[in-house]
Amino acid sequence: MTVHTLLVLVTGGELPPQLDRLTPGARIVRADSDPARLSSQLSEADVLLVWDFDTDLIRAAWPDEGPVPAWVHTASAGVDRLIFPALVESKAVLTNARGIFEQPIAEYVAGLVLAMAKDFRGTWELQRQRRWRHRETLRVAGTKALVVGSGPIGRAVGCTLAALGIAVDLVGRTGRDDDPEFGRIHPSDALSGLLPEADWVVCAAPLTEQTRGMFGASAFARMKSSARLINVGRGPLVVGDELVDALLEHRIAGAALDVFEDEPLPEDHRMWDVPGLLVSPHMSADTIGWRDDLAEQFLDNYARWVDGRPLLNVVDKRLGYVPVA
Amino acid sequence: MTVHTLLVLVTGGELPPQLDRLTPGARIVRADSDPARLSSQLSEADVLLVWDFDTDLIRAAWPDEGPVPAWVHTASAGVDRLIFPALVESKAVLTNARGIFEQPIAEYVAGLVLAMAKDFRGTWELQRQRRWRHRETLRVAGTKALVVGSGPIGRAVGCTLAALGIAVDLVGRTGRDDDPEFGRIHPSDALSGLLPEADWVVCAAPLTEQTRGMFGASAFARMKSSARLINVGRGPLVVGDELVDALLEHRIAGAALDVFEDEPLPEDHRMWDVPGLLVSPHMSADTIGWRDDLAEQFLDNYARWVDGRPLLNVVDKRLGYVPVA
Repeated sequence: MTVHTLLVLVTGGELPPQLDRLTPGARIVRADSDPARLSSQLSEADVLLVWDFDTDLIRAAWPDEGPVPAWVHTASAGVDRLIFPALVESKAVLTNARGIFEQPIAEYVAGLVLAMAKDFRGTWELQRQRRWRHRETLRVAGTKALVVGSGPIGRAVGCTLAALGIAVDLVGRTGRDDDPEFGRIHPSDALSGLLPEADWVVCAAPLTEQTRGMFGASAFARMKSSARLINVGRGPLVVGDELVDALLEHRIAGAALDVFEDEPLPEDHRMWDVPGLLVSPHMSADTIGWRDDLAEQFLDNYARWVDGRPLLNVVDKRLGYVPVA
Repeated sequence: MTVHTLLVLVTGGELPPQLDRLTPGARIVRADSDPARLSSQLSEADVLLVWDFDTDLIRAAWPDEGPVPAWVHTASAGVDRLIFPALVESKAVLTNARGIFEQPIAEYVAGLVLAMAKDFRGTWELQRQRRWRHRETLRVAGTKALVVGSGPIGRAVGCTLAALGIAVDLVGRTGRDDDPEFGRIHPSDALSGLLPEADWVVCAAPLTEQTRGMFGASAFARMKSSARLINVGRGPLVVGDELVDALLEHRIAGAALDVFEDEPLPEDHRMWDVPGLLVSPHMSADTIGWRDDLAEQFLDNYARWVDGRPLLNVVDKRLGYVPVA
């Protein structure tokens, strides 16, 4: 029996227990946190499983030459931390966790839209103060959402918002008029023309050199003063300081960020108490059982790899995401 | 030209400005807050518009004998404050504001479900404390909701929750197996058998002698310890003290109340700070523009009344609600 070496990056805690099912066919090695030692582990591994997605350790340790893993799987939707030149140019196949996070994130975004429309946070602040203060709130049906990102997460968000009676426009990298789900997908250069129409702007794009910083002062200047921004993609899609300024100057009405340029958000960061800004700790996708789902998904793909069958969720390393068929 | 007398009950503030459009065909009279004077106004009025729904003044002032208004319209969905024997037995036709509140309430309930599933309140408490604490939350798709009330509000709630992938059971006064929207409507005596299955129990029933206090200790004892209760109907559907006990003893996981036995909820009421209990000030239906919508609805019905055409939203005074066709 051929024994494959599976290198697993966990930054804290235990290895996923489901991996035990791969032995004795796989030799499972825990990645070292020291870049030099990790580099030599990478030279010897057949497969790399990036279980904890919030580290740049792989980039730091990736061997400059010689053998690298034939397959790298990341237990995340975003692959931005793995899209560095040496990996992109290597023969390593990269796969991601597409399929696990879409529906949970869509629910989370729908919840944020409704919570902002109905001012739940204001209500719960008043509850803390034992104050009964009736207000009129926003009806979401008939409002407009602009979802930036036409991959599986953006699509799931769009479908869920549409089910609430919200008119949804999707923006992707390239436009098309024959999308089976949404009919029209707007190209990214249509974004600035669409921003003035939107009541809700949802960032669900992958982080690439094209999308980094796409929501900054000039985008906020084009939004309605009553509009709200939601970021469930990657922190650097939004220029944090410019968002804070836009909120403080009431150029937009509110924002909810689940992702940040620096995570965890430092305790002394100014974002914690900006009026109108909801902060959550990168949890939109993480419903109970998510780690089990991620482990099962990896095991399924591992069985494909061992059998020589095509892998699922292969990332186009030049695009930085899994192309939608 | 026949001039009709339209008596309008507003407990504070101005008469709805849209009523100006009824003159000179209508003589518009503001209801007196003194029961004796109101009683004589009622004897002389052709039409009574109950614009403010949160008062028992009409019951107190309704004439024991002699003429009463031919038509009473209430700018509310619930008619419980108008279902008293003298009015029920009178010839007065009673209409309500069916059609205005359903979708806003459905959105509010969907928002509460998502907010509880995703623990937004916990997240915003942590934000106040500048604490980054990732948690796993509940996925709503695949959970089960039991909606008590099969009138337009219960139906709108059920449809919206179903659009989020929640399995919905509706309970009405009488069961049926051929409902065009939901297929099956469960009869009220099926409630106790359905309670143990539900993750979400939503009270959207009218307040009648049959529904008063239907959610008390015995109902909570049948619910899952992980289940949550939402009341957007009328406060007395829920036995408040027994709900507080159930929450304090962790017999159910949470509740959101938008309506109360006493409104406004007194500042020293124990409900304000029960863990797991969300309090909002009877606002689930009140989206921006709701009062304009209510006024236009009344004006439409008024034109019907003047023309002798059938009124819309006629309440069955014995049932206590508008029967669904």
